Amino acid sequence: MDDRTGQHIVAETARRSENRYGNRPTMKDVAARAGVGLKTVSRVVNSEPGVTPDTERRVQEAIEALGFRRNDSARVLRKGRTASIGLVLEDLADPFYGPLSRAVEEVARAHGALLINGSSAEDPDREQELVLALCARRVDGLVVIPAGDDHRYLEPEMKAGVATVFVDRPAGRIDADVVLSDSFGGARDGVAHLIAHGHRRIGFIGDMPRIHTAAERLRGYRAAMEDAGIPVEDEWMSLGVTDPQRVRKAAEDMLSGPSPVTAVFAGNNRVTVTVVRVIAERGRPVALVGFDDIELADLLEPGVTVVAQDAAALGRTAAERLFRQLDGNLIAPERIELPTRLITRGSGELPPAH
Amino acid sequence: MDDRTGQHIVAETARRSENRYGNRPTMKDVAARAGVGLKTVSRVVNSEPGVTPDTERRVQEAIEALGFRRNDSARVLRKGRTASIGLVLEDLADPFYGPLSRAVEEVARAHGALLINGSSAEDPDREQELVLALCARRVDGLVVIPAGDDHRYLEPEMKAGVATVFVDRPAGRIDADVVLSDSFGGARDGVAHLIAHGHRRIGFIGDMPRIHTAAERLRGYRAAMEDAGIPVEDEWMSLGVTDPQRVRKAAEDMLSGPSPVTAVFAGNNRVTVTVVRVIAERGRPVALVGFDDIELADLLEPGVTVVAQDAAALGRTAAERLFRQLDGNLIAPERIELPTRLITRGSGELPPAH
Repeated sequence: MDDRTGQHIVAETARRSENRYGNRPTMKDVAARAGVGLKTVSRVVNSEPGVTPDTERRVQEAIEALGFRRNDSARVLRKGRTASIGLVLEDLADPFYGPLSRAVEEVARAHGALLINGSSAEDPDREQELVLALCARRVDGLVVIPAGDDHRYLEPEMKAGVATVFVDRPAGRIDADVVLSDSFGGARDGVAHLIAHGHRRIGFIGDMPRIHTAAERLRGYRAAMEDAGIPVEDEWMSLGVTDPQRVRKAAEDMLSGPSPVTAVFAGNNRVTVTVVRVIAERGRPVALVGFDDIELADLLEPGVTVVAQDAAALGRTAAERLFRQLDGNLIAPERIELPTRLITRGSGELPPAH
Repeated sequence: MDDRTGQHIVAETARRSENRYGNRPTMKDVAARAGVGLKTVSRVVNSEPGVTPDTERRVQEAIEALGFRRNDSARVLRKGRTASIGLVLEDLADPFYGPLSRAVEEVARAHGALLINGSSAEDPDREQELVLALCARRVDGLVVIPAGDDHRYLEPEMKAGVATVFVDRPAGRIDADVVLSDSFGGARDGVAHLIAHGHRRIGFIGDMPRIHTAAERLRGYRAAMEDAGIPVEDEWMSLGVTDPQRVRKAAEDMLSGPSPVTAVFAGNNRVTVTVVRVIAERGRPVALVGFDDIELADLLEPGVTVVAQDAAALGRTAAERLFRQLDGNLIAPERIELPTRLITRGSGELPPAH
């Protein structure tokens, strides 16, 4: 590979993506169909002022009808760029995102596109900054695990043809594709499983309530308890950051005192890992079901019963949806919800200790 | 944040990085100092032909003396870009890279720069394609976990001022900063630990031998065995891809037959996880020391003894080195080696089973 230059590589990949994306309608085609000038189409596509609502509507209709996309392979070739998509994660160190990221990357590679990632570190401003920086770097599409709950800042980019799919959590205040796990149903099933094994005093430790998945899982916990006619006490619920210190204190509080919980439902993999530690240190058996599978969960004693989501399927589904958009298939935004799976390994089948 | 536009965000961050990087010498300054025309400096900086060796040397000396960098903050502002650095990983799903990536990101953020990641999936061509694509997207610097062993393709970019630091594995055929863990010493210590507990028939299961860390750890295994005067048998060593199927077969082969090994040294976290499974299934105790710590290793029975590297320190050290380059501190490329730490938890202290 010594004698290959960057240009060769980029050109090769660009050719790959040209084959991939096929011939696309041009701005000229849109202008002709809408009966306006090229500059007018450019104004609409780039959300620039100076276009009457009626003209904008006609141009948009022409764009819809022709399946025109600004970020097409012709543009890729023109700029000599590699086709690329961006993935905005929430935490680079969370193992849940490993298989998700790799699945997105495999789909991207199958389409001759590069994947570039970034992390919002659960900060909405950081998310927006990163998303816009990736758009400024001309990614053809974005898979976003949102930290914020208002994504109207993305509308101009999406209108300009940046394909966008949200995954793991929904978009806020815009109409966009989203691929989720059934957090509500999964949590409800996991808590119902504990109730079926005789537990009534069941604790819930989850992530910050403003995070959609955390709120949905709490809702699932409440639903299961209500279905069983068990009134939930405030001390049984603890939501907040999932760092070990916070989770450890929450678990120790629930497991101490005059009437401790006999079972804990852990709202995600980070919480589960810490709760497993706290339970192991206390000797007295406590039933546990965790949301998200964790590595080696089956080799612990007892094995950790989990509500597993398919992180790879989330990433794959989102990425395939993204490339359907990039291929110019005009599809109305959809909310796709993937089922979870209860995996019993022992910790969730322990009876209440009295 | 509703009323903020992308431009505001980008401009804000660009200002941050301007303050950060300060005023830099320009091509004009270089041209003046070298006593050549601007076009000549541009030719040298962009590695274009038509410059005599003597002139190139004079220009390079001026660049050195002035600490000129092409990717300076003026350029950032001119392009209205957010300062950014790229991180090229080997596998997005390997938990070892989680803390490393997050550490790089934290340092980048502290310098007002964005981090964008990509993965080579252990493919040298993919690594080159990704690196050049990131350069084409004007990253200010690169932290690279290399998949390939020839990085001369990066020389034009580095000459053009793209700061570059290699981490976890060294660069090939170029002179560059590299931050490594002491794979040789760590493996030697881990194997010596098994020998000290009475083992002589010790197996080594590692990653592909072309990978620097795998080769270094094998070298450490051989050194420890030689120091103890134990001749190593070929069936005790298995190097290859670290997927569960391959590792499982390698472990089962070593643990079967007329004279099985009594202990296994696992060359990395992926190998350890599978070997732990195989040993758990077989009932008969087998001693195990793994390179890299793994989550929940302390809660398994027995706990898994590991040679731990500090993944976060690797990322932090590499990123800080990168920003020292970006700040224009002209420092000769260095090879920085971080120590490993043996953590005894039980599996490595088991006596040989006969």
